[in-house]
Amino acid sequence: MRIDVKAAARLLEGQDDILILSHGHPDGDTLGCGFALCRGLQKLNKRARVECADEIPDKYSYLWREVERPDFVPRFIVAVDVADTKLLGKAFESRYADQIDLCIDHHGSNILYAERTLLDASAGATCEVIFEVLKALHVEMDAQIADCIYTGLSTDTGCFRYSNATARTHRIAAEMIDCGADAAIINQVMFETKTRTYAALERLALDSLEMYFDGRAALVTVTQEMYRLSGSDESECDPIASLPRQIEGVLVGAMLREKVDGTFKVSIRTHRPVDAAALCKRMNGGGHPRAAGCQLEGPLERAKEELLSNIKAVLEA
Amino acid sequence: MRIDVKAAARLLEGQDDILILSHGHPDGDTLGCGFALCRGLQKLNKRARVECADEIPDKYSYLWREVERPDFVPRFIVAVDVADTKLLGKAFESRYADQIDLCIDHHGSNILYAERTLLDASAGATCEVIFEVLKALHVEMDAQIADCIYTGLSTDTGCFRYSNATARTHRIAAEMIDCGADAAIINQVMFETKTRTYAALERLALDSLEMYFDGRAALVTVTQEMYRLSGSDESECDPIASLPRQIEGVLVGAMLREKVDGTFKVSIRTHRPVDAAALCKRMNGGGHPRAAGCQLEGPLERAKEELLSNIKAVLEA
Repeated sequence: MRIDVKAAARLLEGQDDILILSHGHPDGDTLGCGFALCRGLQKLNKRARVECADEIPDKYSYLWREVERPDFVPRFIVAVDVADTKLLGKAFESRYADQIDLCIDHHGSNILYAERTLLDASAGATCEVIFEVLKALHVEMDAQIADCIYTGLSTDTGCFRYSNATARTHRIAAEMIDCGADAAIINQVMFETKTRTYAALERLALDSLEMYFDGRAALVTVTQEMYRLSGSDESECDPIASLPRQIEGVLVGAMLREKVDGTFKVSIRTHRPVDAAALCKRMNGGGHPRAAGCQLEGPLERAKEELLSNIKAVLEA
Repeated sequence: MRIDVKAAARLLEGQDDILILSHGHPDGDTLGCGFALCRGLQKLNKRARVECADEIPDKYSYLWREVERPDFVPRFIVAVDVADTKLLGKAFESRYADQIDLCIDHHGSNILYAERTLLDASAGATCEVIFEVLKALHVEMDAQIADCIYTGLSTDTGCFRYSNATARTHRIAAEMIDCGADAAIINQVMFETKTRTYAALERLALDSLEMYFDGRAALVTVTQEMYRLSGSDESECDPIASLPRQIEGVLVGAMLREKVDGTFKVSIRTHRPVDAAALCKRMNGGGHPRAAGCQLEGPLERAKEELLSNIKAVLEA
């Protein structure tokens, strides 16, 4: 059942011992949502904690500085920024898939798996929706919550760069800065800092750059071998996905990321008028109009062939 | 004489045949200011036009789509985002240096050369100040003005990434998006598009990367030879200045850019606690706390030596 912000707030008001789940391979939005909501509920004297199926990278540790992690048997489960139970991560999918009481999300592709879903696909980040829920719960904002919400806004919109950064996104960002969000430091950590291993991986990936269809599509590949050579790993890979689309004339940029099992995770970034979600849907994936993803079988040449034939079809449409 | 927003608006209200000057080697803020103010004054039925000593790159052409360029003998001259008459560019410095009636700026280093100066060093971009002047003039905002103001906000704050992007910056951005600013397209043009020649120049410049002082300083050099090899030129150089600071542990990132006359233009980007403006002041330059610049004599080794001895002094302070 779809519910609105007020109904979600009323629902949460009546609950306690609340487990909040982020998606696996966590990013700034799902974690910002999780810890902002958790801190907000704790400020209302509820027991709540955040869990993630995968390890959370250290760079996010400022998100839970002032968030407690109480032990309890969950009586209510909320998934934040999780469009599909598959995205909870393997361990959590089997444990929680049919037990989610409330999902709060901004992905138009949400499969409505939860008992109740608060979905606002016009939000640039799920943190915008969490902000509204916290307001409806009359939670007093503080610097910890502001850091969390700001992180989601900034990371999901490429630091306010993409079309999903709306006037509302900017207004919430302004309020979060007024509440003490350390915006410049957060952006420095999220966008301005390249580890030496990432810098090496980026160089290797860019060496693999290939252009197709008169320069309208560009592909980079990240292989397990590149992780070994650079000392990097999959957790550092995400920013590379946006590089191919930056080259002038490119409408579809793609990153093929080799998994340990030999399959490929594909990240698509597009410019108008190409719909990334529609392109990925052809390959059983999904996402947003300008950023989406899917999985393809290996080996690399087979994955590329399938990807390119779908890109071709979309460019010709 | 320093004046406030209201006084600047009253002053402009009483004038006509207004020439607006941007700084030379123009950027998104000085041009956004110029064309926003020009369009605003034209909407108040005044004659006004923008001039720049240097050629304006084509990518900015959307800023004057709906701005007229009437011919008249100026009776009032406004400089926007110009901290020093030297920055007007050679041709304009000799012609206009002692004739500027009003300067509107956000550089703390402004030398107060104009008859009257509206200076707000807390503004992330001079476009924030222009926005307030247009409000005080009761100019009705439109999509053209919104594109101009948004461009200044976005380009001068690294797309809202740096510490100069305040709550006010975000609130004005929100209002500009509501007024029709095409934010995503502007950011795509300003931040997301690499020409093939720029991409080649970037690769050459990164090959010159040197680290000093236990990795706390990083230098890249851009030479005339690199322009020849890449097919690029100085107009594409700016984004390279921010790359050295991105490497983890770097507090001072510098780009040395070889000019045709063999001197070097130095662009400094710092992280807290290093003050870029103070560093550049030691070398007769200036700017902002995190981004500043200066000129050094060649040859390259001499320029590097002078730069490094000043960086060393600042790091040891």
